[in-house]
Amino acid sequence: MSLVASADVTTPRPQGARPYPLASRAEHPEDTVVQVGGVAFGGQRVVVIAGPCAVESREQLMETAEAVRAAGATVLRGGAYKPRTSPYDFQGLGEEGLELLAEAGARTGLPVITEVMDSEDVGLVARYADVLQIGSRNMSAFRLLRRAADTGKPIMLKRGFQATIREWLLSAEHILAQGNPRVILCERGIRTYDSEYTRNTLDLNAVPLLARETHLPVVVDPSHGTGRSDLVATMAFGAVAVGADGLMIEVHRQPGEALCDGKQSLSTGEFGALMAGLRPLAALLGREV
Amino acid sequence: MSLVASADVTTPRPQGARPYPLASRAEHPEDTVVQVGGVAFGGQRVVVIAGPCAVESREQLMETAEAVRAAGATVLRGGAYKPRTSPYDFQGLGEEGLELLAEAGARTGLPVITEVMDSEDVGLVARYADVLQIGSRNMSAFRLLRRAADTGKPIMLKRGFQATIREWLLSAEHILAQGNPRVILCERGIRTYDSEYTRNTLDLNAVPLLARETHLPVVVDPSHGTGRSDLVATMAFGAVAVGADGLMIEVHRQPGEALCDGKQSLSTGEFGALMAGLRPLAALLGREV
Amino acid sequence: MSLVASADVTTPRPQGARPYPLASRAEHPEDTVVQVGGVAFGGQRVVVIAGPCAVESREQLMETAEAVRAAGATVLRGGAYKPRTSPYDFQGLGEEGLELLAEAGARTGLPVITEVMDSEDVGLVARYADVLQIGSRNMSAFRLLRRAADTGKPIMLKRGFQATIREWLLSAEHILAQGNPRVILCERGIRTYDSEYTRNTLDLNAVPLLARETHLPVVVDPSHGTGRSDLVATMAFGAVAVGADGLMIEVHRQPGEALCDGKQSLSTGEFGALMAGLRPLAALLGREV
Amino acid sequence: MSLVASADVTTPRPQGARPYPLASRAEHPEDTVVQVGGVAFGGQRVVVIAGPCAVESREQLMETAEAVRAAGATVLRGGAYKPRTSPYDFQGLGEEGLELLAEAGARTGLPVITEVMDSEDVGLVARYADVLQIGSRNMSAFRLLRRAADTGKPIMLKRGFQATIREWLLSAEHILAQGNPRVILCERGIRTYDSEYTRNTLDLNAVPLLARETHLPVVVDPSHGTGRSDLVATMAFGAVAVGADGLMIEVHRQPGEALCDGKQSLSTGEFGALMAGLRPLAALLGREV
Repeated sequence: MSLVASADVTTPRPQGARPYPLASRAEHPEDTVVQVGGVAFGGQRVVVIAGPCAVESREQLMETAEAVRAAGATVLRGGAYKPRTSPYDFQGLGEEGLELLAEAGARTGLPVITEVMDSEDVGLVARYADVLQIGSRNMSAFRLLRRAADTGKPIMLKRGFQATIREWLLSAEHILAQGNPRVILCERGIRTYDSEYTRNTLDLNAVPLLARETHLPVVVDPSHGTGRSDLVATMAFGAVAVGADGLMIEVHRQPGEALCDGKQSLSTGEFGALMAGLRPLAALLGREV
Repeated sequence: MSLVASADVTTPRPQGARPYPLASRAEHPEDTVVQVGGVAFGGQRVVVIAGPCAVESREQLMETAEAVRAAGATVLRGGAYKPRTSPYDFQGLGEEGLELLAEAGARTGLPVITEVMDSEDVGLVARYADVLQIGSRNMSAFRLLRRAADTGKPIMLKRGFQATIREWLLSAEHILAQGNPRVILCERGIRTYDSEYTRNTLDLNAVPLLARETHLPVVVDPSHGTGRSDLVATMAFGAVAVGADGLMIEVHRQPGEALCDGKQSLSTGEFGALMAGLRPLAALLGREV
Repeated sequence: MSLVASADVTTPRPQGARPYPLASRAEHPEDTVVQVGGVAFGGQRVVVIAGPCAVESREQLMETAEAVRAAGATVLRGGAYKPRTSPYDFQGLGEEGLELLAEAGARTGLPVITEVMDSEDVGLVARYADVLQIGSRNMSAFRLLRRAADTGKPIMLKRGFQATIREWLLSAEHILAQGNPRVILCERGIRTYDSEYTRNTLDLNAVPLLARETHLPVVVDPSHGTGRSDLVATMAFGAVAVGADGLMIEVHRQPGEALCDGKQSLSTGEFGALMAGLRPLAALLGREV
Repeated sequence: MSLVASADVTTPRPQGARPYPLASRAEHPEDTVVQVGGVAFGGQRVVVIAGPCAVESREQLMETAEAVRAAGATVLRGGAYKPRTSPYDFQGLGEEGLELLAEAGARTGLPVITEVMDSEDVGLVARYADVLQIGSRNMSAFRLLRRAADTGKPIMLKRGFQATIREWLLSAEHILAQGNPRVILCERGIRTYDSEYTRNTLDLNAVPLLARETHLPVVVDPSHGTGRSDLVATMAFGAVAVGADGLMIEVHRQPGEALCDGKQSLSTGEFGALMAGLRPLAALLGREV
């Protein structure tokens, strides 16, 4: 799928049996394409998902949604339920946030993705969202995975920040084994011994590795992956270069005023510059963005 | 220096005082260019260092050296002293390896880089090598750093596989404080909780982060960084995309017969394909390779 | 509480404000004692929780329950819902397992503890269990924490295998802030870069550290903490020596035939030997077991 | 060797061939005892090594040496060469420090241990020291290991803070294969993802694990292992409980004025209290201290 991937093909690796038969590339050689409305994850186009960390208000969301669509994003993100380490932080608007998100999706024509944090909420979230996101902390919440699978909706499964590749693919296997083949993987940074300058360590190695291990599409989230807005664009560039099928980027009209993760959010202007920078790179790789 | 870096410049970060004043970008805003013969690390050209993990024989080295030069490498690598976890593994040819390396450098016209593992060897290695490499295990061997600094030769300082960015820059500071400004940093993968599918986790985030923290050039080694030949080309591509000033690639005429690290070595043919793939990417970024 | 702890008291540390005011020792200097029937966590007695990883059958459970009670355990454990990395592994008996557990508790007179994995199950599990266990993978499942808190039952909160001490105490804070003060912490090993010889790295440092940071009782699980039955007794000994308020030990009548975690389970005979070994140590520390 | 170890013996593990034949317990079932003057590492007595992080002055060292001897320490430690992350920190007194250390050893009758950081210094350090310490950063400095081995002196090999058990034993194998059987292992804490409250994570699991894997004696250093003086005594207690053959404790007459690692140093009074606390525990285990 890239200039380089074709070079790599000259060194095939013998692959032993994997404990995730449904997710395994060895057993399903062809790429899976997950269709969401008019958007295809795993196809020739690099899908860009953008929007705020959290839905905060109608104005904030609509303004951001219009801006990211204008810049070329094809999926809108926004959190209604936020998993927060502290019980004293903003926990999201809940159903009101879902309604606003659906409204923004309808207005912009963009499909929407949002996180479902708990089995109890699956039905509710599935009424509003086009793609269900399973967050990093919940990658091993197996009941939640099954409930989400049962909706039949596409599911974006973020990597646990402490999860091995094997564990991640086994969590995908939980969804696939439940009868829902529409799984998108999202690399979002792992926890290492060094978190002084960056929040996480974005693991771009996972992208070409997953391309060998699985047929599922892979999205990269450099916002959480680095935790620093000034590194997001460069790492997004790197993600596309190593073959990512999509990007997830946090964008806020006023990052300095965000209720959540402002330090890692691009302004709408920065996001536009990023999109412009990505186009020639995608073209070089025989893709578009 | 890249399409994307220019976008990033719009979000400057306030920087506190750093404990590495000589290495700090804040105190030395201009890029350092380390000149090695006709090769410049930190300039417009992405420098590609290639060659075998270990010097094994004249034939092996000469054949590989000619091939990597023909493919476009501008520096030749090869280990004469190998730090091996087991005392029962091949430890390198020692001075004989250094002689062969110098001979290969003379024959191909390429400057040579090789690892110096111990203070005792600094004088000897410096007689043969154009660049002294400090290996990952020795990043905190402070006497060795000072001895190497005293030769006045350029020094490529590999990141300890467990080292934080701060520790790495402080090790560079040891060299700079000794009066040798010719330091090249080399990211080569860190140790994380997951080493089932890859030997290390190549930390590409370090590249744009270091571009903010320091003025020193940064090289990326995807061979050690992944430990798998089938991932090397893609990660090299990613490294250039995120702004690396150079690459270090292990190449062997017969990877399957290498005495050291054969699993992560490219064949000469694969290396040629990689170089061909990198040229249009470098051009897109306003660089060459 | 120990010979040594009294020595340590001579070096008090100034403590900054903590983000977990309800859990913080600085704001609540006195030890919290969590009473479960006649058993007190956080008191003078070291509480030993024992039983099988999973409830497999009436015979297996009853035999094990009788044996651990005879050896001196005062709480019975057993999993009815098992979080399994693979969807193809035994997932537990569910409600049937809960019924058997309650029956075994009634027969032996031991209070029972079992894991609740999902918000949906909280009501059901709370009908059968005396203590609700939140497993390592769910330490940050915040809705589950709140639902469990709402039952008013004592909650044993296992440390996420990737969780910092700060994050762990913030998860406890979620429960406390919901109005349930009956929280027991359980250290069960963390994930590090080395998992060749042991499944996890049991972090005994957490025990005296938590004694400074929080007033909540702390239990240690050396079974998961090491993953090896031949290390369990020694690490249990160490846990008591550093001041643990309790132990959680997996015991199976036939470890070699266990459906889950047999490698880390003690036989009933080994468990009896462990209990005998612990008594003089506890006595030395002014405690009993 | 402990109440508990005897219980553990009931669960022998089949052991595959190890890559460290000389260090392997499987091939050398009997405990190695390393004799240093009248002190035996690996015997019935738990050896306590104590003294300052760095030799700072005659008065500081002599006062501390007398105090630790009076409290029951049987080996004196003190650093003359200090590996410091920053080139701007105190690097130790060098040869003057060695002379003071030898003088203090002679005056107190205690054998002395000190770190040798570089191959160049081995001869010099060996003239003054009874035991050569290889520090954590140098565990994989293989030439240094061989040079140290060649002196025939006992060698205390600290675990690299990033080293696996396998790598550690392979470093010991480098020394053993050089013909020096007098190797003492020292666990001193590993680097994990959490370093907010403690400097390192002391890995007490390593103690019983090493007792199975190797015949070499194992010492524990809770000073570096935690980095906090208020945790040292408790973790020392835990180390003895899990079977450590010795302890290494940093002691300073005025921890608040230490030039190095004052935060983790006990005062002489605290050290005396620790020794008093350890005696009944050792007695319980059939050992003395």
